[in-house]
Amino acid sequence: MASGGPEIEQLIQLLARLPGLGPRSARRAVLHMVKKREQLMLPLSAALDRAVAVVRTCEVCGNIDTKSPCTICADPRRDSGMLIVVEDVSDLWALERAGVGQVNYHVLGGVLSPLDGVGPDDLTVDALIARAPDFAEIVLAVNATVEGQTTAHYITDRLAGSGLKVTRLAHGVPVGGELDYLDEGTLSQALKARTEV
Amino acid sequence: MASGGPEIEQLIQLLARLPGLGPRSARRAVLHMVKKREQLMLPLSAALDRAVAVVRTCEVCGNIDTKSPCTICADPRRDSGMLIVVEDVSDLWALERAGVGQVNYHVLGGVLSPLDGVGPDDLTVDALIARAPDFAEIVLAVNATVEGQTTAHYITDRLAGSGLKVTRLAHGVPVGGELDYLDEGTLSQALKARTEV
Repeated sequence: MASGGPEIEQLIQLLARLPGLGPRSARRAVLHMVKKREQLMLPLSAALDRAVAVVRTCEVCGNIDTKSPCTICADPRRDSGMLIVVEDVSDLWALERAGVGQVNYHVLGGVLSPLDGVGPDDLTVDALIARAPDFAEIVLAVNATVEGQTTAHYITDRLAGSGLKVTRLAHGVPVGGELDYLDEGTLSQALKARTEV
Repeated sequence: MASGGPEIEQLIQLLARLPGLGPRSARRAVLHMVKKREQLMLPLSAALDRAVAVVRTCEVCGNIDTKSPCTICADPRRDSGMLIVVEDVSDLWALERAGVGQVNYHVLGGVLSPLDGVGPDDLTVDALIARAPDFAEIVLAVNATVEGQTTAHYITDRLAGSGLKVTRLAHGVPVGGELDYLDEGTLSQALKARTEV
């Protein structure tokens, strides 16, 4: 048991439930916070209150933002006609950080996983099928896992006959990656998809 | 840049300043929080507000608690006459978790470090010298670093002539530790301080 009273103990326990933090690092984080009360604890508390008050999920694409439709969906300059389908909001943010251009997104909210009891109705597949005709190209940017690829197949089947162009991300050597550390699947895909220099 | 609006971005930046979290893990933590709004984000926000409101530093020992004097200082059962001097509140909590018994503590708030401009006046040494006569034994539980040992020497000097018993933690092989991975200093100290079985 810690020695900081029940309020501190509860804060530690809640922080420990964040990914990347355990009981020990949560304790260290809280101590650090308390020591930097003015510079860190008060602003953090205020920022969390503000975020709780304004954050919502976009009803169109599933992004997390302060409004719905979100900034991306409401942006009229996003007219590339490309709809990128991702598993999770974090993937959407990663693509935005990569500066992929004036595209739109659709967050599935997970992947099909019969073992975990996740079926099409647990994802936003129906909403995707409904939105898809508004775009010229649907890019399936799901993870290169078995579940991700199963989900991509399922969506491709559902979109078959719609006449829409459906694509997926290229496989290959990551930029800065060393061949030595790559798995055989990636290497053979990278060789197959080689390009002229 | 992320795509969650300024409130989310600010929350990420503040969380990233906690030890053990960087910009990437803070982003992941915030996403996790937002997804578990009811179960995690709201309770965490409330817990942080409560902690901010009640947490203070104990005027007697330097512990962090919801009252001053803190629970430990105010506990009349702590009558072992042993005052354990530690660098930081985290050390105090670690000793309490280890169940060292009905002892009292004194948090120095750091160690002497001329290079970093930390002198005796930056620590709670004077308060320690003033409290010390109330106890039968002063245990210097500072870290086994150069600065820690310098600080221990300085305090021992200041207490010289007071007639107080001043001790330090034993050096030796950590419980569960493998000899192979221990430094020579620890091994030679452990051999010197060997005990009969």
